[in-house]
Amino acid sequence: MAGAAAAVTRRAVTLLLSSRFRTPASRVSSLIPIVGASNRRFLCASSVSARTAEPAEAASQLGETVKEFRKRFRIDEVKGGPDQGLDWVGKGLTVRGWVRTCRVQSSVTFIEVNDGSCLSNMQCVMTSDAEGYDQIESGAVTTGASILIEGTVVPSQGAKQKIELKVTRLVVIGRSDPTTYPIQKKRATREFLRSIAHLRPRTNTFSAVTRVRNALAYATHKFFQENGFVWVSSPIITASDCEGAGEQFYVTTLIQNDTEDNNFNVSKIPTTKDGKIDWSQDFFGKPAFLTVSGQLNGETYACALSDIYTFGPTFRAENSNTSRHLAEFWMIEPELAFADLNDDMACATAYLQYVVKYVLENCKEDMEFFNTWIEKGIINRLNDVVEKSFVQLSYTDAIDLLVKSKKKFEFPVKWGLDLQSEHERYITEQVFGGSPVIIRDYPKEIKAFYMRQNDDEKTVAAMDLLVPRVGELIGGSQREERLDYLEARLEELNLNKESYWWYLDLRRFGSVPHAGFGLGFERLVQFATGIENIRDAIPFPRTPGSADF
Amino acid sequence: MAGAAAAVTRRAVTLLLSSRFRTPASRVSSLIPIVGASNRRFLCASSVSARTAEPAEAASQLGETVKEFRKRFRIDEVKGGPDQGLDWVGKGLTVRGWVRTCRVQSSVTFIEVNDGSCLSNMQCVMTSDAEGYDQIESGAVTTGASILIEGTVVPSQGAKQKIELKVTRLVVIGRSDPTTYPIQKKRATREFLRSIAHLRPRTNTFSAVTRVRNALAYATHKFFQENGFVWVSSPIITASDCEGAGEQFYVTTLIQNDTEDNNFNVSKIPTTKDGKIDWSQDFFGKPAFLTVSGQLNGETYACALSDIYTFGPTFRAENSNTSRHLAEFWMIEPELAFADLNDDMACATAYLQYVVKYVLENCKEDMEFFNTWIEKGIINRLNDVVEKSFVQLSYTDAIDLLVKSKKKFEFPVKWGLDLQSEHERYITEQVFGGSPVIIRDYPKEIKAFYMRQNDDEKTVAAMDLLVPRVGELIGGSQREERLDYLEARLEELNLNKESYWWYLDLRRFGSVPHAGFGLGFERLVQFATGIENIRDAIPFPRTPGSADF
Repeated sequence: MAGAAAAVTRRAVTLLLSSRFRTPASRVSSLIPIVGASNRRFLCASSVSARTAEPAEAASQLGETVKEFRKRFRIDEVKGGPDQGLDWVGKGLTVRGWVRTCRVQSSVTFIEVNDGSCLSNMQCVMTSDAEGYDQIESGAVTTGASILIEGTVVPSQGAKQKIELKVTRLVVIGRSDPTTYPIQKKRATREFLRSIAHLRPRTNTFSAVTRVRNALAYATHKFFQENGFVWVSSPIITASDCEGAGEQFYVTTLIQNDTEDNNFNVSKIPTTKDGKIDWSQDFFGKPAFLTVSGQLNGETYACALSDIYTFGPTFRAENSNTSRHLAEFWMIEPELAFADLNDDMACATAYLQYVVKYVLENCKEDMEFFNTWIEKGIINRLNDVVEKSFVQLSYTDAIDLLVKSKKKFEFPVKWGLDLQSEHERYITEQVFGGSPVIIRDYPKEIKAFYMRQNDDEKTVAAMDLLVPRVGELIGGSQREERLDYLEARLEELNLNKESYWWYLDLRRFGSVPHAGFGLGFERLVQFATGIENIRDAIPFPRTPGSADF
Repeated sequence: MAGAAAAVTRRAVTLLLSSRFRTPASRVSSLIPIVGASNRRFLCASSVSARTAEPAEAASQLGETVKEFRKRFRIDEVKGGPDQGLDWVGKGLTVRGWVRTCRVQSSVTFIEVNDGSCLSNMQCVMTSDAEGYDQIESGAVTTGASILIEGTVVPSQGAKQKIELKVTRLVVIGRSDPTTYPIQKKRATREFLRSIAHLRPRTNTFSAVTRVRNALAYATHKFFQENGFVWVSSPIITASDCEGAGEQFYVTTLIQNDTEDNNFNVSKIPTTKDGKIDWSQDFFGKPAFLTVSGQLNGETYACALSDIYTFGPTFRAENSNTSRHLAEFWMIEPELAFADLNDDMACATAYLQYVVKYVLENCKEDMEFFNTWIEKGIINRLNDVVEKSFVQLSYTDAIDLLVKSKKKFEFPVKWGLDLQSEHERYITEQVFGGSPVIIRDYPKEIKAFYMRQNDDEKTVAAMDLLVPRVGELIGGSQREERLDYLEARLEELNLNKESYWWYLDLRRFGSVPHAGFGLGFERLVQFATGIENIRDAIPFPRTPGSADF
């Protein structure tokens, strides 16, 4: 079946392409009337006449100039407008996308086409007199098939949309065998969709998640750029001894897979005399890992360029099969120079409000989809984040509050113990009625060595930003900028000072008060979409036992 | 020495911070008069009075609201203006940054302060009556020290700048011992600076590279977002058999470092009966690698959302110690659906012109620095890229042209052989006089399996974009969207079809003509800055034997 379908596909595409490739611009224009869009991309740009700009003399003899780039027409441009496309009525249009459904009725056929630019399909209405109707009759227009449709925008009779496309011409570009296409109308489980991660963006849920994820990423860059932060790429592979041990992946060229070298045997791994791995023969000459955080590297740049941020992948080789953990996830880690914990909290708050507001304003349709199908009330929850003041309270006050609540928690509540998710959610959801809360000044014993010691000598200038439903979304701290304090802390914790020579240098030479925070990007995607499992918040999730695609 | 300096530092900072932490807003304002900038960040935001917005009732009892985030004052705001700061004359200003030089003269002291926001220092002029002059006398104001300076903007007597700051108050925040600080005035070699990668962003060259790199990254996002592309994060770790073998890093938890577990011995690596590695016990249950390209994953999203781009790290375990290779580098890989090679070339051209133009417009001072100190004429070279039409010619024509040139090349020129850097540079620099050139339609034998076969059956729809000085900057192709062609090609190349099941699925279900390209981001940084060694185009370079920091 697949072979036969492919052969048809090939013919259709060849035909389609060749008619574009070999016709002069004028002819193509008459074939595909695109309204008010001289800068639109056709299927193939080759149909556009060459630019008249003066080419170098050699160029005019030897080569052609490259054609002008034209933005692709997107269904979102019509359906995403304020009047949902009514201003396009009467205009000609060419739509390219994938068939979501095709309903053949006695006198008329309805084809729903989606091009990924928005959740909305373009409803295309076709009668038997339109060019290409034989494709309907032959059964080629099935769910998942890619098609090109030309037509005229008309007001829709249906209640679901304001406009539809009256088809004048249909071309099937790529078929989709309905007996084998895995995404059929009946709803597939999320778990099943993870097993076809290459096709799941063709569903409403995953295309919406992808667009919101994209909006959150772009809003992240916009926020920091507009505030004068410089993006720094922290390294992914690191042989630095500063990284925390234990939950790291090793990066090596010492081992190989048997399928590539049938003679590869463990005995081929170079060893020292006592049978231990000879790291000097590895690619980097010593053990190397995937980074767990770009913070320490980010600090080096903040201590030169003032405000910076990282946005890149980080890794944990943690054997956690939960809905909140990934082995590979993206982190955003800003670092502010000449800043203290109050600046840090203010920045985290402003950042979160900015990106959430951006998504609410720029992904309206997708957010309504989530509000209806994924988490009822999510739009209100996010509006709260944008509008409510964020509250801060000390860890000590938070413990008091939890003790006084007389609520039975699973985990004990006691000064010195870390807060658990149930405590965090109780505080933000119950005590503060859905407002985000920042808890600050944690006991130093439960926080990292680099956090700045407070004057009470018991707590450090750390903060966790808690949000309803998700719990901790952001964790940050003011960094210990005092060399002697930092060295003392390393000694207390039996960490090797030599390994931190470059980190300590930042405190030796022109040390400044500085602070920063970290945000797991997929947690933010979960927070903004209501998606329950973090594996559905990233295109290709990596978890124990799973790194396919 | 360092210890004593640190103690002083600590006292200074404690003093500085405590005066900020504990004074009401009004007092701070009088201490640090910042003009026209109610939304500015002070050293510490805690000095700002709480927002008056209505907090939740619980909040008003239990916690404080988080303060408003305020953008840090940046020297660039003064010196980067159209009249280089003249409009600031008479205004009060507080500058925080690092001392570049301090020249003590009999009646007056000149301190050059840099805060990383721009190449320009703020020249601060201090007389002995200013508060904190004792710090000058004690020798605390040395190169690399961090300081806070308050003063008034006055016209400068010097020829190098239009304005300077007349100091009213100086505070040393963090000292820098001049006998040990590695970055002294005399120029350090690039090689030496690589060994102090944590401090090199404090030099003019590396801070300028960092800012231009940041501008290129942001312009990349802007270009694609403005053209309707969706950012997709392709996976970093992959167990997919599609990836090319050989030059990959393995990602594993099967091996450990001896220092963490003194008993770890190669014999502890789990093996199968025949002594081979038992991958089923590894974290992902099979061999896993660091990605060499996100393209195949990107295609899956383009075949659902139409136009997408990736921007993330990629890896090569190639033992190349050259000025053009990194083991870890960032790649930009857009993928366009319903597009052919002409669209692809048009997009690559528009992209390159956009980002180069963005840098020329937004990094003027840094570009002038490169033009003077790194590569004379670079601004003209980049202007050419923005203004000239890009020329395209076929590989066959390029071979003809090289043969007819009668020039002696080191590598042979013959149809079927790949073009070498010397050929590429000859074409773009000599034949086309500095204009970027795209070579297209390469012999299929020298290109990847996924590239679309042309009708001549000998070539594929591939393209390389060549630029003066760097050679190949962008490589792209139209992808083979025809299932039978693609399967035949996999068979010809003895590739395992089963491994590509999901990639082939894109051709089975709703296949569309699509095309894309890849761009090594650090090569782009080299191209835009003139920096010769790629290790200086990324904050923390990873190369054979080197993954420190």
